[in-house]
Amino acid sequence: AKMTQNSVMTQDVIKEENLRDDLRYYFMSPCEKYRARRHIPWKLGVQILKIIMITTQLILFGLNNQLVVSYKEENMMALKNLFLKDYSGVDEDDYSVAVYTQQAVHDSLFYVLDQYSQFGRLSVGPISYAEDEDGKLLPLTLCKEYYKRGSVEPSNEAYDIDAQLETVCVTHDPNTTNQQKTQNSSFFDLDFYRLVDIKITFQLRGINLQTVRSRELPDCYAFFVTITFDNQCHSGKVKIFLDIDAQSCACRNWKISGTAQKNTHYLLVFDVFVIVVCLTSAVLCTRSIVLAVRLLQRFSRFLHENYNRKVCEDDQSEFLNGWYLLVIISDLLAIIGSILKMEIQAKSLTSYDVCSIFLGTSTLMVWVGVIRYLGYFQKYNVLILTMKAAFPKVLRFCCCAGMIYLGYTFCGWIVLGPYHEKFEGLSRVAECLFSLLNGDDMFTTFAQLKDKNILVWLFSRAYLYSFISLFIYMVLSLFIALITDAYETIKVL
Amino acid sequence: AKMTQNSVMTQDVIKEENLRDDLRYYFMSPCEKYRARRHIPWKLGVQILKIIMITTQLILFGLNNQLVVSYKEENMMALKNLFLKDYSGVDEDDYSVAVYTQQAVHDSLFYVLDQYSQFGRLSVGPISYAEDEDGKLLPLTLCKEYYKRGSVEPSNEAYDIDAQLETVCVTHDPNTTNQQKTQNSSFFDLDFYRLVDIKITFQLRGINLQTVRSRELPDCYAFFVTITFDNQCHSGKVKIFLDIDAQSCACRNWKISGTAQKNTHYLLVFDVFVIVVCLTSAVLCTRSIVLAVRLLQRFSRFLHENYNRKVCEDDQSEFLNGWYLLVIISDLLAIIGSILKMEIQAKSLTSYDVCSIFLGTSTLMVWVGVIRYLGYFQKYNVLILTMKAAFPKVLRFCCCAGMIYLGYTFCGWIVLGPYHEKFEGLSRVAECLFSLLNGDDMFTTFAQLKDKNILVWLFSRAYLYSFISLFIYMVLSLFIALITDAYETIKVL
Amino acid sequence: AKMTQNSVMTQDVIKEENLRDDLRYYFMSPCEKYRARRHIPWKLGVQILKIIMITTQLILFGLNNQLVVSYKEENMMALKNLFLKDYSGVDEDDYSVAVYTQQAVHDSLFYVLDQYSQFGRLSVGPISYAEDEDGKLLPLTLCKEYYKRGSVEPSNEAYDIDAQLETVCVTHDPNTTNQQKTQNSSFFDLDFYRLVDIKITFQLRGINLQTVRSRELPDCYAFFVTITFDNQCHSGKVKIFLDIDAQSCACRNWKISGTAQKNTHYLLVFDVFVIVVCLTSAVLCTRSIVLAVRLLQRFSRFLHENYNRKVCEDDQSEFLNGWYLLVIISDLLAIIGSILKMEIQAKSLTSYDVCSIFLGTSTLMVWVGVIRYLGYFQKYNVLILTMKAAFPKVLRFCCCAGMIYLGYTFCGWIVLGPYHEKFEGLSRVAECLFSLLNGDDMFTTFAQLKDKNILVWLFSRAYLYSFISLFIYMVLSLFIALITDAYETIKVL
Amino acid sequence: AKMTQNSVMTQDVIKEENLRDDLRYYFMSPCEKYRARRHIPWKLGVQILKIIMITTQLILFGLNNQLVVSYKEENMMALKNLFLKDYSGVDEDDYSVAVYTQQAVHDSLFYVLDQYSQFGRLSVGPISYAEDEDGKLLPLTLCKEYYKRGSVEPSNEAYDIDAQLETVCVTHDPNTTNQQKTQNSSFFDLDFYRLVDIKITFQLRGINLQTVRSRELPDCYAFFVTITFDNQCHSGKVKIFLDIDAQSCACRNWKISGTAQKNTHYLLVFDVFVIVVCLTSAVLCTRSIVLAVRLLQRFSRFLHENYNRKVCEDDQSEFLNGWYLLVIISDLLAIIGSILKMEIQAKSLTSYDVCSIFLGTSTLMVWVGVIRYLGYFQKYNVLILTMKAAFPKVLRFCCCAGMIYLGYTFCGWIVLGPYHEKFEGLSRVAECLFSLLNGDDMFTTFAQLKDKNILVWLFSRAYLYSFISLFIYMVLSLFIALITDAYETIKVL
Repeated sequence: AKMTQNSVMTQDVIKEENLRDDLRYYFMSPCEKYRARRHIPWKLGVQILKIIMITTQLILFGLNNQLVVSYKEENMMALKNLFLKDYSGVDEDDYSVAVYTQQAVHDSLFYVLDQYSQFGRLSVGPISYAEDEDGKLLPLTLCKEYYKRGSVEPSNEAYDIDAQLETVCVTHDPNTTNQQKTQNSSFFDLDFYRLVDIKITFQLRGINLQTVRSRELPDCYAFFVTITFDNQCHSGKVKIFLDIDAQSCACRNWKISGTAQKNTHYLLVFDVFVIVVCLTSAVLCTRSIVLAVRLLQRFSRFLHENYNRKVCEDDQSEFLNGWYLLVIISDLLAIIGSILKMEIQAKSLTSYDVCSIFLGTSTLMVWVGVIRYLGYFQKYNVLILTMKAAFPKVLRFCCCAGMIYLGYTFCGWIVLGPYHEKFEGLSRVAECLFSLLNGDDMFTTFAQLKDKNILVWLFSRAYLYSFISLFIYMVLSLFIALITDAYETIKVL
Repeated sequence: AKMTQNSVMTQDVIKEENLRDDLRYYFMSPCEKYRARRHIPWKLGVQILKIIMITTQLILFGLNNQLVVSYKEENMMALKNLFLKDYSGVDEDDYSVAVYTQQAVHDSLFYVLDQYSQFGRLSVGPISYAEDEDGKLLPLTLCKEYYKRGSVEPSNEAYDIDAQLETVCVTHDPNTTNQQKTQNSSFFDLDFYRLVDIKITFQLRGINLQTVRSRELPDCYAFFVTITFDNQCHSGKVKIFLDIDAQSCACRNWKISGTAQKNTHYLLVFDVFVIVVCLTSAVLCTRSIVLAVRLLQRFSRFLHENYNRKVCEDDQSEFLNGWYLLVIISDLLAIIGSILKMEIQAKSLTSYDVCSIFLGTSTLMVWVGVIRYLGYFQKYNVLILTMKAAFPKVLRFCCCAGMIYLGYTFCGWIVLGPYHEKFEGLSRVAECLFSLLNGDDMFTTFAQLKDKNILVWLFSRAYLYSFISLFIYMVLSLFIALITDAYETIKVL
Repeated sequence: AKMTQNSVMTQDVIKEENLRDDLRYYFMSPCEKYRARRHIPWKLGVQILKIIMITTQLILFGLNNQLVVSYKEENMMALKNLFLKDYSGVDEDDYSVAVYTQQAVHDSLFYVLDQYSQFGRLSVGPISYAEDEDGKLLPLTLCKEYYKRGSVEPSNEAYDIDAQLETVCVTHDPNTTNQQKTQNSSFFDLDFYRLVDIKITFQLRGINLQTVRSRELPDCYAFFVTITFDNQCHSGKVKIFLDIDAQSCACRNWKISGTAQKNTHYLLVFDVFVIVVCLTSAVLCTRSIVLAVRLLQRFSRFLHENYNRKVCEDDQSEFLNGWYLLVIISDLLAIIGSILKMEIQAKSLTSYDVCSIFLGTSTLMVWVGVIRYLGYFQKYNVLILTMKAAFPKVLRFCCCAGMIYLGYTFCGWIVLGPYHEKFEGLSRVAECLFSLLNGDDMFTTFAQLKDKNILVWLFSRAYLYSFISLFIYMVLSLFIALITDAYETIKVL
Repeated sequence: AKMTQNSVMTQDVIKEENLRDDLRYYFMSPCEKYRARRHIPWKLGVQILKIIMITTQLILFGLNNQLVVSYKEENMMALKNLFLKDYSGVDEDDYSVAVYTQQAVHDSLFYVLDQYSQFGRLSVGPISYAEDEDGKLLPLTLCKEYYKRGSVEPSNEAYDIDAQLETVCVTHDPNTTNQQKTQNSSFFDLDFYRLVDIKITFQLRGINLQTVRSRELPDCYAFFVTITFDNQCHSGKVKIFLDIDAQSCACRNWKISGTAQKNTHYLLVFDVFVIVVCLTSAVLCTRSIVLAVRLLQRFSRFLHENYNRKVCEDDQSEFLNGWYLLVIISDLLAIIGSILKMEIQAKSLTSYDVCSIFLGTSTLMVWVGVIRYLGYFQKYNVLILTMKAAFPKVLRFCCCAGMIYLGYTFCGWIVLGPYHEKFEGLSRVAECLFSLLNGDDMFTTFAQLKDKNILVWLFSRAYLYSFISLFIYMVLSLFIALITDAYETIKVL
């Protein structure tokens, strides 16, 4: 019995030493692990490989994306210059052109039709009318929307309106526009009191030839152009918008000679490789988490059995390494992004934005993750440690400051909104105040409020001076005090 | 006697314990009160309800306000584009257009008349000439103001002026403008040496139809347009202003079909409910203040009777809770604002600005008041405590800095005022310096002073360098030192 | 002997007590002086009176100044619009218009002549041709300056130039310009290879009538207009400048009726009163300084006789109150400024700038002087004390930082000067760097350097990043550290 | 033996004392050296002389450089205004003009030819056609580059392209342009589908006459003008670029009379003198380093022999004075810069940029080197000491922050690049973020992202708020904490 007990004790001792070793090993840095058990740091290698590959992938995607974006933008620019009369080259506010007289509306309208009918002789790009599948040109559609019935007599403050909207459309063939204009002359008798908007829609087809020079296949594009004459406000100002929805697809018939086509397979292979590396990294990290949880369980069982104590919360959180979580999330994002990227390259998807958000966020996380490895070298983790120490205080502090901030946001929006474009929407006010407190554009903000009524002028001064003083002098200074305090705390450790 | 004394003592003890209990209870947080006496925190509930309701009310009012403001602004824009010759689309400085030749003044003048006479065929909005009650069109009035008598001969530095102003007016009917122009040709013989200004005033009527779509009743607007040709300066530059005074009223005859009108009663009920909640909150807070004063009296009487001591000032101020005051003020503001809002909705008032200032300020205060409840959780009130601790020092410090600031303001205004638009008025100088010390627009401020006379150039450099160095490096750093100091004081507590 | 000794001792004791009293009294604040010896604080009263009066005087002068400045500026604007062809309304860089072709030069030249000849019918202001004393119109003078002899053949890289300049002038009478143009046609045969510049000078007379409304006498102005066609660079770009020298004088013949003239005597009396107050203040302060020096001498004699010790330097500097010096300087400036102001009002001087610098600086100093009186209340002088404590350190520190700053200034000027307008001159570089380190306009500074040659691009990046990082992160942080340190030193006291 | 030992000991003692003296002397400041051994501080004198001379040289070079640069820039401006149709005076983005219609391309093309053919009568500067060595005018060359074969039918998504590029050129004699235009009419039949670009190249010769007035010899310039009609993108927008390569050379035949030429020899002598001073300084510093190394060797030998100890690393680094290295590098840069400058003055080099970078960098270093001498006065080296103390921490800290920064850079580029011009290229993103964290342009950055798709809008807000908060509130505050900490460390010493 004694022997058994002895052996049990020995076993216990062995178990304990085992656990202690495992624990010590768990908290080692890759270097120390290598020295201790000749454990080659695969995980570290995978991470470094991942950083390089994800960054490369992002840059390749970005460069490709830029070409597509610039093609679309320049086409947008060209079409605006072709179809909008008196277009200045830059959009005002959110619309492109504003017209104020009935004559100007008619002129702008006919200008679109004229330019469209002679589009083939105008444009300098490989872009032309769209054809349907029978080779017939798709016509331009012109729709006007107006109140069903309405007689408005502002002179004697009377109106009689049927608020239901009616829509009337005519179509125009580019080849016979002039005849049609005279035929549909009744259509162009616009009753501005009732008119809500006029929409001109047509479709153009273009080919992005520039990719030939980077030895890629040119894509075909369908441009769905919508020109809107917006009279919804009935304020005497008709805003003209030009919107383009550009959809790319593979061309139907193509033949290229005189140049070798780049092999797009390599790119696919690269993407697949990225996915594999990310998967590996995710699996390795999951394993580490699982191991950590098991180790924690062993440790807590040991503590419970031998000392009848529980693992305190602080120690528990030591086991659950937040970095692993970060890596796994970034891996998942990268995998999804890579798949989207492959789809885009295969022309079966066009959602560049979604893909770039996935790839971008994962790259951001991967680079932030590097700090973890820097943290293995002592003294390198001042930033992280200070942040960790300051975080709860900063958060609590932000809560309070946030209340005042919110109050100022609402108050600024309601009072100054009508007088200052920076205070027009709630999110804009929040941004404006955020910018102000970081020392941005102060004088112009003040100045734009100058020649309004005296009450609002006084209020705006009180508002701005108090906000800026309070936040720049009090709140920002307190931030510095908080961080300095946290830094001194971690310096002592 | 002993028993009596005893009972008195017992009574005293009971009273004392009672007081102690009451005092303890008074300084508890709502949570603790609930735990101690199962007192359900009505007041807290009312406050939370108030925050939600006031914010909702503010947002509803703001969205409605935006529609009105944008309608007015776009009409202003449209009228400027219709009536001002060569209008560029943006106002220069504070006027809209400036003309420099006699011919240009005549052209601009006739342009207004021509455009007015054909206004019906020009405008794209539901806006037209105003009629008086008999259905007759209100005419345009054209007034010129000039020195009664005047012969100015700059060539030989002589003038002879009767500084009294005379005003001559003619009226124009839109339908017969051209005849009138020739009839009143003597009126248009402007003697520019004597001319002070020309004022063209007319009235237009418009209907804000856009509200039909948000299922509200369209309002009728009267636009009182004033176009001023300002030659007061006699400097060879005639500034043209266009001002609009837009007044809304309910339309006289209206009929809408094809859509259901939104029930505006709900909104009124909501406003009334807000007023009720605010009243409740104000009453509850007043009651709390009254209770606190009574408790203070009891406490001071107790201290006086038993220990013959007075309550010290610090303790007294503990009783008088500043938060209650804040809440009551915000409640009063909200009530006044809500009443104004109801009046506006009933079209009996149009002072949007005053209403929005009341509502905005009350919302700001209500959100700031949230900090008080956060303060009940420990550690959350760092901001408030530090501010309280730093406040007297900061104020004293601001006094001193303010003197230097004032000195710089006066000095900058007088010396740099003629050379730099940022230094034109005293309040602008104050704003400019305030912006500069928060790191704004420095280079342009320097740069705009470049090609003036050398003395002013040197002065401006000395002025700006010294001001910025003094305030950014000394004063702002001292602010940080003050706040850090205050933070360390409260951290120790 | 003993008695004598005794009496001497007594005398000594009395003297000592006397001295002690005087010293104590000397360092008292006005309040304490009043309490101690019922000494009514005349000096304080005079200072307060001075602040009010100087500030009032400054505001009055400023308002008057603004009218004059705006009159001159608007005239400048009007003349530019009248005489410069294709003037856009804003000056480019430092010239008004630039022309690039021979035709355009001729057109602009003839445009000036044409406009001048019909000036009377053009201008809307009370401004006309100048006459000499016999009532004859002063003619316009047209001068061209060119190299005496020159044949330049860029094609075969040959030139032969006589670098001496010749000037040929013709005069034009406004009434007969057209004949003269044809008569002097040889003058207008410009040989652009030799032409250095063309100068058109003429004189106009105007009357500032706007002051009639503020019930002051209108002044007469002589405008000496110079239009320069500058071809000095011979770079294919002819810059056109328009300069005006406006001189005001009292009009010769004038008659005003219909309004009472403001009595300008009151203003003179006010100015005299300001001078008297400033003189009083200066005399009082000088007396205080004299008294202080005497007291110091007594004290040092006493110390020397009784303890054979010298007054240490720190104590000496306590006696010499820097504030008095400040007050005396500000008084002198105010007196000079007031005298200048009176001269200006009497139309015998026109140097507004010099006067405003004197008045402005004295006002700045007077307001700064207020801090001294605030300093008598305890705790109010944190700002001054901290500044005093930090000053030597800050100065030494600025010396070092200044060296690096100077190095960067020179380096930036030489390398980036040709590529970026902010780095064009040494003083501009200094201003630009100063602005950058206070957080201004960083991105645009970066951005404007984008499409230059790669070497300069790389250099500019290294330059800007290193400068900003060094100064914002290191130098500014050290400033905060210095001030915080100084604050903690004075807080302990 | 004892005596020998004794003498050895004596020798040792003497040696030791010798060494101690030398060491003490080595670490003295120039002043102390002068006092100790009457060693006149030649080195200091040379340095002061160097500072003065290098700064003078830099300023001279800079002023000269400015003239050349302004001549080139104004010529560039003039040529753009002459040859580009509808040129607005400022370049858009990176091109000068953009055209959108076939007609506009033809117009712009013919405009160039027309203007070129009448260039002699157009330009106001001493600039004309280039001639070859036989005196024949060099013709203008017009080349168009296009895809060898191509039929593009966007309507039915079909194309057939031979991606090889063909180039066709025609030359135009300025005297016979009009005939040639009709002769080469086939050349101007542009097939826009295939057209890649059109390049117009010609050569002009000019003489920089303005230097005559600063009494220097005028240089001849050859301007190689290239006008490019860029249709590479095939996006419907043809961008027009105008590039000038200006090469200066000495004119072949020249004759100047009427003015004395400045003697340029003095400048050469000055440059040589600068080189000599820099060489002396470099040699002296090298000698000092050699002496220091020898002293170190003696000291380490002594320590080894007598105490059998090694010199610790800290002490070693004390011997190797970094300042000497700085001086030597700056000397070398100055010498290279001066040689380049002399070459430029002798017209055998035109690389102003390289020269100015060398001179600029050396001047920067020389001024930074002044701090070393300031450091000899106590208390003056706070800046340097604090920087030294803070440097390792700051560097480590920057590493960590840099990772996050890099992550944000990549992420911002990929996601926001297509929507915001500030995020277009990786280096621009880095600059933009750097500017943002120093408080620049925040609101406009926010605002320009407003009307994009909702996903990107949300992302941009999260991105910007998180970046700014993280860096301004956490990272910058930590910087202050680090520097304050370092300052306190060195203050104790």
